[in-house]
Amino acid sequence: MALPALSESTLDRLGGEMYDLLYSLFPICRSITGNGVRETLKMAQSCLPMEILEIPSGAEVFDWSVPDEWNIFDAYILDPEGKKIVDFKANNLHVLGYSDPVDAKLGLPELKEHLYTLPELPDAIPYLTSYYKRRWGFCMRHNDFLQLKDGTYTVKIDSTLKPGSLTIGECVLPGEQEDEVLLSCYTCHPSMANDSISGVVLATFLGKLLSQVKRRYTYRIIFIPETIGAITYLSLNKDRVISKTRAGLIVSFVGDSGPFCYKKSRQGNAEIDRVAEHVLSHQKGNYEVRDFYPDSGADERQYCSPGFDLPMGLLTRTYYLRYPEYHTSLDNLSFVSGENLSESLGLYYEILAAFEMNKTYVNQVMFCEPYLSKRNLDSTLGSQKTLDGETRKIKWLLNYCDGKRDLLEIANKISIPIQDLEWAVQELIRTKLIKPEITN
Amino acid sequence: MALPALSESTLDRLGGEMYDLLYSLFPICRSITGNGVRETLKMAQSCLPMEILEIPSGAEVFDWSVPDEWNIFDAYILDPEGKKIVDFKANNLHVLGYSDPVDAKLGLPELKEHLYTLPELPDAIPYLTSYYKRRWGFCMRHNDFLQLKDGTYTVKIDSTLKPGSLTIGECVLPGEQEDEVLLSCYTCHPSMANDSISGVVLATFLGKLLSQVKRRYTYRIIFIPETIGAITYLSLNKDRVISKTRAGLIVSFVGDSGPFCYKKSRQGNAEIDRVAEHVLSHQKGNYEVRDFYPDSGADERQYCSPGFDLPMGLLTRTYYLRYPEYHTSLDNLSFVSGENLSESLGLYYEILAAFEMNKTYVNQVMFCEPYLSKRNLDSTLGSQKTLDGETRKIKWLLNYCDGKRDLLEIANKISIPIQDLEWAVQELIRTKLIKPEITN
Amino acid sequence: MALPALSESTLDRLGGEMYDLLYSLFPICRSITGNGVRETLKMAQSCLPMEILEIPSGAEVFDWSVPDEWNIFDAYILDPEGKKIVDFKANNLHVLGYSDPVDAKLGLPELKEHLYTLPELPDAIPYLTSYYKRRWGFCMRHNDFLQLKDGTYTVKIDSTLKPGSLTIGECVLPGEQEDEVLLSCYTCHPSMANDSISGVVLATFLGKLLSQVKRRYTYRIIFIPETIGAITYLSLNKDRVISKTRAGLIVSFVGDSGPFCYKKSRQGNAEIDRVAEHVLSHQKGNYEVRDFYPDSGADERQYCSPGFDLPMGLLTRTYYLRYPEYHTSLDNLSFVSGENLSESLGLYYEILAAFEMNKTYVNQVMFCEPYLSKRNLDSTLGSQKTLDGETRKIKWLLNYCDGKRDLLEIANKISIPIQDLEWAVQELIRTKLIKPEITN
Repeated sequence: MALPALSESTLDRLGGEMYDLLYSLFPICRSITGNGVRETLKMAQSCLPMEILEIPSGAEVFDWSVPDEWNIFDAYILDPEGKKIVDFKANNLHVLGYSDPVDAKLGLPELKEHLYTLPELPDAIPYLTSYYKRRWGFCMRHNDFLQLKDGTYTVKIDSTLKPGSLTIGECVLPGEQEDEVLLSCYTCHPSMANDSISGVVLATFLGKLLSQVKRRYTYRIIFIPETIGAITYLSLNKDRVISKTRAGLIVSFVGDSGPFCYKKSRQGNAEIDRVAEHVLSHQKGNYEVRDFYPDSGADERQYCSPGFDLPMGLLTRTYYLRYPEYHTSLDNLSFVSGENLSESLGLYYEILAAFEMNKTYVNQVMFCEPYLSKRNLDSTLGSQKTLDGETRKIKWLLNYCDGKRDLLEIANKISIPIQDLEWAVQELIRTKLIKPEITN
Repeated sequence: MALPALSESTLDRLGGEMYDLLYSLFPICRSITGNGVRETLKMAQSCLPMEILEIPSGAEVFDWSVPDEWNIFDAYILDPEGKKIVDFKANNLHVLGYSDPVDAKLGLPELKEHLYTLPELPDAIPYLTSYYKRRWGFCMRHNDFLQLKDGTYTVKIDSTLKPGSLTIGECVLPGEQEDEVLLSCYTCHPSMANDSISGVVLATFLGKLLSQVKRRYTYRIIFIPETIGAITYLSLNKDRVISKTRAGLIVSFVGDSGPFCYKKSRQGNAEIDRVAEHVLSHQKGNYEVRDFYPDSGADERQYCSPGFDLPMGLLTRTYYLRYPEYHTSLDNLSFVSGENLSESLGLYYEILAAFEMNKTYVNQVMFCEPYLSKRNLDSTLGSQKTLDGETRKIKWLLNYCDGKRDLLEIANKISIPIQDLEWAVQELIRTKLIKPEITN
Repeated sequence: MALPALSESTLDRLGGEMYDLLYSLFPICRSITGNGVRETLKMAQSCLPMEILEIPSGAEVFDWSVPDEWNIFDAYILDPEGKKIVDFKANNLHVLGYSDPVDAKLGLPELKEHLYTLPELPDAIPYLTSYYKRRWGFCMRHNDFLQLKDGTYTVKIDSTLKPGSLTIGECVLPGEQEDEVLLSCYTCHPSMANDSISGVVLATFLGKLLSQVKRRYTYRIIFIPETIGAITYLSLNKDRVISKTRAGLIVSFVGDSGPFCYKKSRQGNAEIDRVAEHVLSHQKGNYEVRDFYPDSGADERQYCSPGFDLPMGLLTRTYYLRYPEYHTSLDNLSFVSGENLSESLGLYYEILAAFEMNKTYVNQVMFCEPYLSKRNLDSTLGSQKTLDGETRKIKWLLNYCDGKRDLLEIANKISIPIQDLEWAVQELIRTKLIKPEITN
């Protein structure tokens, strides 16, 4: 029933492959719409087959509508001497996301109204967007900004913003049950490595792994632009998402070297929250578990809006508001590694394995302890001092498999990882001493 | 919707006026019945119009009956030389409350059976009463008591105890809702400043302030003798009090300089308990919150008897069992100040303002975040680093205005005073993103 | 209503008598069936009349069946020189419980397959049994085992294992109510003093004490072999046990000098759990309260199996897994004392007295405080400073006797032993201010 364990060598190999995919995806200029997203999904499809959905601009999705599609081809600033001092082709963060096209000459004071910098990180290009107000602008290193001299500058942004569509990738892996586990990553960030793209890569490989095993649950892996993509997806799939989603995880910030951080669902005590905390508490590193908060974060803001209130959490490494490289050009390829990705993949897989394994069983004897030694489940030589570890687990299981407590609760009572109950559970099923609770 | 804020200068002015009223009320000899109470209420009426109710002696009120009315005109002890050594006119605490009249000459041993002192505070006159057993007696400083010499003493108490009535003052300030907030103070203590009279003064001025503003709730301010007055009032108004009282506060011990102390209602987690603790936790001073206890205290012993179990707490300054001046002549005018009264009035008002403001709202979008930037409620320049404080509050409100959580719970989640949600709540109402929950 | 208090001198006397009984019971070779159990019960009957039940071998009891009856007459090992080096008559722990008969000569290697020792306690004879697999064997001191030399040994076990019956003793003491308190001890251990036999002795004397007093509850005291006896008893009495058992205690490990340890019922917050913890917290010594665990322990493993889930706890002195003498010949007469037994009896009695006393009462006034001074329950001289201890208790009782809270909860609110409420409760009953809640 439980997912097969992943070997160290498999994880090592996958770490390398994940880094390779991330390396290929990194240079693409993505946004919430446009060809960068399509190119990204095409690359992911080579690992994980998925369906591509195009939702036309103007579609009404809850309180929003799908925006026009933005594409960009080139952008630069020439200084008064004609030198290219800011170049989109060198780093696509240089352009304010969703910039209007512009082709103009202007003086420094006027130019400065369109320049964005980060004085506190003077060598970083900040990441900024203006999806819902028409603007044009450039983001640049504050140190470069300080060098600008008076004179006439040439600015050029070769972009288009017009009706098109918003692109979503979706992969469904049917399981024994129709209940679904939703894995969600976002595809809308340009060249940053840990934010957004590390999640795309991990979700792709996690999907690939899940496609190769026997699954209890149906898995649905979606690749969407943040916020508007989640809103669009939820709007199109509202009833199914509400009725079928048994758990979910939002995947991002999984390539850096920091400790894991789990942000709980709004429900706070959903099965996935309990499983994630359980697995984190038994892995070797430090970790952090945070209560849900709605004022920042990723797409859990939509999944956990009060109308949905889905049992979904955000599982990251370094908490995103704690790393200064966040949303800058410093979140680059050197900030992530295949080893980190591999470790993150292992943790995600372990959480899903625990979630798959977790069930509520019912003791078929119920009245008094069953006669274990006739089933070779207890020593025939009586002395409580010699009770062995598996017999102890069997006794805990028999007492608490009462149809009300799931395996996770029993594992927590004994302070062991749920996986360590596997042998005892299988023996009790084999000897017909427990059966899964029938739920409707 | 919220009550208007009180300025510092208003509070300063009211502090002075409160002290003046307290100064005028102080010398009056009050008891649970009699003309001292009537005189007290007449003075309060000059600030706050109220109805005066007279309940005749003998009326049956739950397990009790209204006692005969007591009035006193003079009382003294003459020593063997004819010197007035104890004089009611110098301090009305000298007479045991409800003393029978007496006019006699007696020896020291017999006199001593009628004398009460406080050896541990030898310069204080204790406050004692004998409402329900006919006695006569004098209270005096222990140091004076020690000077008494053998000989024949003359004692005179010119009092009457006969059928009359018990006097109650009541002021009702209708609000938008019929639900009531009950403010209760007691009028039965003779010349003590902090116990009883400081509460009468604060309740009077709080009523005056409330009479001048738009009120969500109906306020009922009652002036009653402690215990028997509360029992009488509750007996006469049982059904209305039970069905209408949404919250209440018992007002006393509000003139000294100590930190605030809130004794919770018997319910323990009533809305008023949560509001009081919230406001106390955000004001600048130390404070104490105590669980309900029934074995001592003021009229919460009646309001929170099991049959009523009203959501009412006792809000004081120094916890009454912790100040040695309690129930003695040392609880005098120098123990209280206008500044303390003003600070107490400010806190009571702030608690009522928070209570008025606290509501349960329902997000009108519910599914996903609303599109805030089109309503100018979020920045149009996308970067989570720049989310501003009001936008954060708006996001918390939208997520948790689910019809189940009130503003207080949301403010506590963000660790800010509820008043700091005012702007965001008003904006969300204005933009029709939230509406108050309709309750029946 | 409450049980009469036990005097120190009564407890002292009973301590001596308990030690005498334990001393007589100690040498008997008991097992889960056989004449040792019958002899044990016969001795206990001299103190406490009880019914003896014989359940035939082969009877089906839940998942088990009653085993054949085992009796043993003699057993020894002769060394190659013919010297008796292991002798059942010197210590009955030398024989593996339920050993098959054997009469053979064999070499040392073959003999060693039938020898059991405790290398970590080389001077102790371990206690071992093989109830459900046919074996024969000897238990011996590890130091003796190390002296064994090559050669031919003679082994002799003169035992019988054949259809017979399992023996149970049961004493019922009817009370005012049909609800039962079940006291359970186990009779199956051979010569060990603290494990098993101390419990038999204490249960016998506790029953004797209870037989002499007016009882609210019906007491049922059962003497059973551990595990199979409890399973058999529960199987024969399933419906009554489930419907009538209001509380229960498993009695064992009560003769040593360690601090008390209470293992809660599986319910965790049953009335008996609350009472036991309350009484332990007010006695003078250290104590420990443990949550229920099903993987070891005594018959609570059966009583608290999920089908029964009875409100029964295990009350011992030193937690059995913490004393190294457990299940060895070192758990002998010098490990226990009459003084310890007496102290344990006192604690058990006090817990039952508190349980008998604990009731839910209803205030007959409910609305406001009753007029206490007319009933002489409060001072007629008014001053909160002088409120006396009994009046305080009366006020707590009146406020919280609301039909929902029992006396135990009220005592815990005031942090006093429940017994200290006795006078106040009786006064309130006498003055008709409270009545017991009628429960169906």
